[in-house]
Amino acid sequence: MFDTVCIVGVGLIGGSFGMALREKRLARRVIGAVRRQATIDEGIARGALDEGTTDLLAAAREADLIFMAPPVGQMISLCRQIADVVPQGAIITDAGSTKSSFVFECEEVFGERAHFVGGHPMAGSEQTGVEAARGDLFEGAMWILTPSSRTPPLALSTLTSMVQALGATPLSLDARAHDAILAATSHLPHISASALVHQFARTREDAEVADQLIAGGWRDSTRVAAGSGEMWRDICLANAEAIETSLDELIGDLEHVRSWVREGEGDKLREWFEEAAQVRRAHGILPRK
Amino acid sequence: MFDTVCIVGVGLIGGSFGMALREKRLARRVIGAVRRQATIDEGIARGALDEGTTDLLAAAREADLIFMAPPVGQMISLCRQIADVVPQGAIITDAGSTKSSFVFECEEVFGERAHFVGGHPMAGSEQTGVEAARGDLFEGAMWILTPSSRTPPLALSTLTSMVQALGATPLSLDARAHDAILAATSHLPHISASALVHQFARTREDAEVADQLIAGGWRDSTRVAAGSGEMWRDICLANAEAIETSLDELIGDLEHVRSWVREGEGDKLREWFEEAAQVRRAHGILPRK
Repeated sequence: MFDTVCIVGVGLIGGSFGMALREKRLARRVIGAVRRQATIDEGIARGALDEGTTDLLAAAREADLIFMAPPVGQMISLCRQIADVVPQGAIITDAGSTKSSFVFECEEVFGERAHFVGGHPMAGSEQTGVEAARGDLFEGAMWILTPSSRTPPLALSTLTSMVQALGATPLSLDARAHDAILAATSHLPHISASALVHQFARTREDAEVADQLIAGGWRDSTRVAAGSGEMWRDICLANAEAIETSLDELIGDLEHVRSWVREGEGDKLREWFEEAAQVRRAHGILPRK
Repeated sequence: MFDTVCIVGVGLIGGSFGMALREKRLARRVIGAVRRQATIDEGIARGALDEGTTDLLAAAREADLIFMAPPVGQMISLCRQIADVVPQGAIITDAGSTKSSFVFECEEVFGERAHFVGGHPMAGSEQTGVEAARGDLFEGAMWILTPSSRTPPLALSTLTSMVQALGATPLSLDARAHDAILAATSHLPHISASALVHQFARTREDAEVADQLIAGGWRDSTRVAAGSGEMWRDICLANAEAIETSLDELIGDLEHVRSWVREGEGDKLREWFEEAAQVRRAHGILPRK
């Protein structure tokens, strides 16, 4: 499917992508472009890479597909660095969990020379680094692509075929719609889980016995809060507009609940909880472990 | 351990308590006091009861232990009803998930005649009703008891032994401390999960594709929201003071996050997420299913 694939940033996602490409023989050669020699060694040892380099431009120069998996805050500047050296007609895609803050600019950066198409493989884990990479990470996952009016149909169909070959389900979506949905399904749950943990920590200051009283409900509700603070800072900054809007609405709901609790408005509370319960039940209940 | 135990309200918790008592032979006779004959039949068929009645006073009159498992809003009035008929020296305990709104009054209701000791077995599931009852529901669970200065040591030690015999871990706690801790570990996570579901439902109105983009993180964060609206209304009303206080603090945190997102305060966001991550990691990460 590809001759030379360059993976920029070989962590959990980049490493898993390299493994999957190599296991499924979708590329003749997979080169990792990273900062540290140790990551190259580990990536090759784990079967994620054929070779690696700390020279981004050298790797980008030879690639017909460039997979960008750095922190989202670095996406635009990395694209600028490679824009003049990528082969004519190369496809560049990314794995960032937000899109509209950089995809339009990244598309422009490559001009007519090459084609940037935003992507978001919806797979991950609390673990990070190439050590946690797995060749089957994307199997069964949704993989969003965010083509725009600039995107050549062939670039989109090539990436769609690649996603399918990796065992994932491709879904084309407007970059802004992606960001609004992800704010609700991922970013807000993370902020809310972190706020619950802060509230727990304050309670625990007065009563250490609180440690003994956390049960499955708290663990589930706060599980995502264990993720990396740096990554979530980057997501909040990259998706600021959609997050601010949805946080406004969430805070508004909580203020309503607070006033109903204060004023003993039982009917309104019951109705609000029951509406949420019905939506939630319609979206699959995983049994408590 | 007991001669006659009366269980008031034979649902998931009352039914499981009956099963556990009978399986472990901790009572000569277990009577269910319920509203509907069908519940008696089901309770006997499932091994949760030896017998049942819709006549609360008749059952209470014969019991040396009364286990109250009705909705918390009914606790005081049910105690008032049985206060004059319970045998001298009987022990009354309950399974309510909030405590201070009724335990002090329930203690008073029985005067010197009998001894009410608040209790909260921290076990449950999204399922409800005696159909979901299990004799091992309390095994390995924490079981809080909330004795006060009125509580006779013998009543507390009897209940403590009973909890241990059921395979649970007893923990004595002030009723108000219980409520403050549970607000943080259970009630606030439920409200927050329900608010996240409402936010998702609003997003989904504009973009039905959102259904396809919910992943394990959202499912975990919102799982508890599938619970009964009635039960959570009751909990909010019964623990209003502690919930209002902790909601205030949670909303305050979310407002900080909103302003950091708006103003691009990356360092503050990273620090806040990282603090939460450290606390959360210290409290056990269950792997994503």
